[in-house]
Amino acid sequence: MKTVPEAIRYRDGVLELLDQRALPGREIYQPIVTIEDAAEAVRTLTVRGAPAIGIAAGYALAQSMRGIDLVDRAAMLARNAHLLKAARPTAVNLAAAVDRLVALGTTNPDRLILEAEAMHAEDRLICQRIGEAGLLLITEGTNVLTHCNAGALAVSALGTATAPLYLAHQAGRRFHVWVDETRPLWQGARLTAWELSTAGIDCTLICDHVPASLMAAGRIDLVVVGTDRVARNGDTANKIGTLGLAVLARHFGIPFYVACPSTTFDPSTPNGAAIPIEARHAEEVLGSHAASVRVWNPAFDVTPVDLISGFITDRGLITAPDENALMAAFRD
Amino acid sequence: MKTVPEAIRYRDGVLELLDQRALPGREIYQPIVTIEDAAEAVRTLTVRGAPAIGIAAGYALAQSMRGIDLVDRAAMLARNAHLLKAARPTAVNLAAAVDRLVALGTTNPDRLILEAEAMHAEDRLICQRIGEAGLLLITEGTNVLTHCNAGALAVSALGTATAPLYLAHQAGRRFHVWVDETRPLWQGARLTAWELSTAGIDCTLICDHVPASLMAAGRIDLVVVGTDRVARNGDTANKIGTLGLAVLARHFGIPFYVACPSTTFDPSTPNGAAIPIEARHAEEVLGSHAASVRVWNPAFDVTPVDLISGFITDRGLITAPDENALMAAFRD
Repeated sequence: MKTVPEAIRYRDGVLELLDQRALPGREIYQPIVTIEDAAEAVRTLTVRGAPAIGIAAGYALAQSMRGIDLVDRAAMLARNAHLLKAARPTAVNLAAAVDRLVALGTTNPDRLILEAEAMHAEDRLICQRIGEAGLLLITEGTNVLTHCNAGALAVSALGTATAPLYLAHQAGRRFHVWVDETRPLWQGARLTAWELSTAGIDCTLICDHVPASLMAAGRIDLVVVGTDRVARNGDTANKIGTLGLAVLARHFGIPFYVACPSTTFDPSTPNGAAIPIEARHAEEVLGSHAASVRVWNPAFDVTPVDLISGFITDRGLITAPDENALMAAFRD
Repeated sequence: MKTVPEAIRYRDGVLELLDQRALPGREIYQPIVTIEDAAEAVRTLTVRGAPAIGIAAGYALAQSMRGIDLVDRAAMLARNAHLLKAARPTAVNLAAAVDRLVALGTTNPDRLILEAEAMHAEDRLICQRIGEAGLLLITEGTNVLTHCNAGALAVSALGTATAPLYLAHQAGRRFHVWVDETRPLWQGARLTAWELSTAGIDCTLICDHVPASLMAAGRIDLVVVGTDRVARNGDTANKIGTLGLAVLARHFGIPFYVACPSTTFDPSTPNGAAIPIEARHAEEVLGSHAASVRVWNPAFDVTPVDLISGFITDRGLITAPDENALMAAFRD
């Protein structure tokens, strides 16, 4: 059994990040020694995916306290926490991970390392549980479509949308995954196709416009995507294109599932209309086609809950999702 | 008023083709002197789009007869016709255009030039009529989505899907066009966005996954695409992705129109299931992301007639299209 690639490695006191910018051409683990290394890695997307960024920042912050005199530690912790948060100010997981370590104080630097390791382990466990919750959806011969990268590279261990795939593969089930390119940043082509094939999972890359024809031909049985935020009523924000795939799945009678940790549920956002959508730079789209043409490059879209067959979560499979079901499952 | 770019120019006995491979970066008209020049231009996609290829081949064949002794003309015409057809054996319009000239014989080479000019003029007239048939769909403030390039570059003069846009623009109407990139060959990004903005039409480039979010936000009022073949029952083959846009348009209650010359109607094909779909090379998809990943790269998909609001044709606007309506409109 081939192993799933790891986005973050912490072994024998050495933190290394898989440089996701070099994928799939080169598999380079970049050592992170200073806090500046870590901030740079976050800023340049060497590490990406909200949970992965948080975990990497946790390790980096913890190890930056090693060998610092007690008298200097408080100031150093505050400075380094600030540096990391500033590297990607909109990343909620990053800030949350940093704050979690800062709250522990500075009396024992080793304690910070243990906390970072615990965060990493928690994330692995969440992915495992998501995989277990979704495993029944992947039967022998299932054709799955996934979108963007909600995989091991974005999270840790099994990823979210990919977790049921990895567990089904480990269980010896034979199935097949369609991976769309995911313009403009190619996370499907560069990352998902790479991580699935590295793990030995049978997959095929397609352009973003191809899924409808595959659905019409009966060649897709299931769609599984990740999410960046689930509103209280179940409306779901995810990488641009998710909404279109959900509409197509509904039209062709194909189940459409969202995989996510329960931490992605945001009860303070009432519905999809309240989720802000980030519009990104035109340069991402133009690529080699630099023309004097205006570009609209939204990073996310919102899929209304009525197009979602269910949520695959660390608290089980939530079918027929609505506000009541989600609140019951996700509120502690 | 800026002019629509011409894919083919024939002036003062000189044939020139706009090199579509260099677009949008450079606007180069390549002179076509010998029949080999023409065959090479077809083969290398210097000229593309079924009607444009036919017209270019017609001019090239006609001018290749100039200055040839009467005694040699029959053999030369046969040889050159063969050379052109072999440059793109699946192109029906190319073979039809060549055969039309060959049928005229070799007694008067000038007659061949006149015939080529007539073919070109007929194509312009067809585009004009398509534009007139679709003009009522483009009102003040309309937001149109188009896909791939069924524009001036693929046909001549006004194009097919773009013809109503050019006429509405000439009429001074203000409207806006969303242009999708059209992976893997970027005909939307490279060609449609370029030709529309060159003509001064307000347009915005988007990735292929963006339309659903625009439709959900009420920012698309109309979808207009071209087609490669319309079956007898109205099922329509076009560039991969068309089916998905038709499903989305239906879901969001947006009219979905197909623009085409009546010659695209193929009564010998009963329905979409009988249309062969070309799968193309993986290299087109992989681009710079060369991984050892399998690729599925279909060039076309089929949109069932029940998802099509109407056909915009040189014989008028066909709404509520079905076999009877299409046969009535298109059979002579």
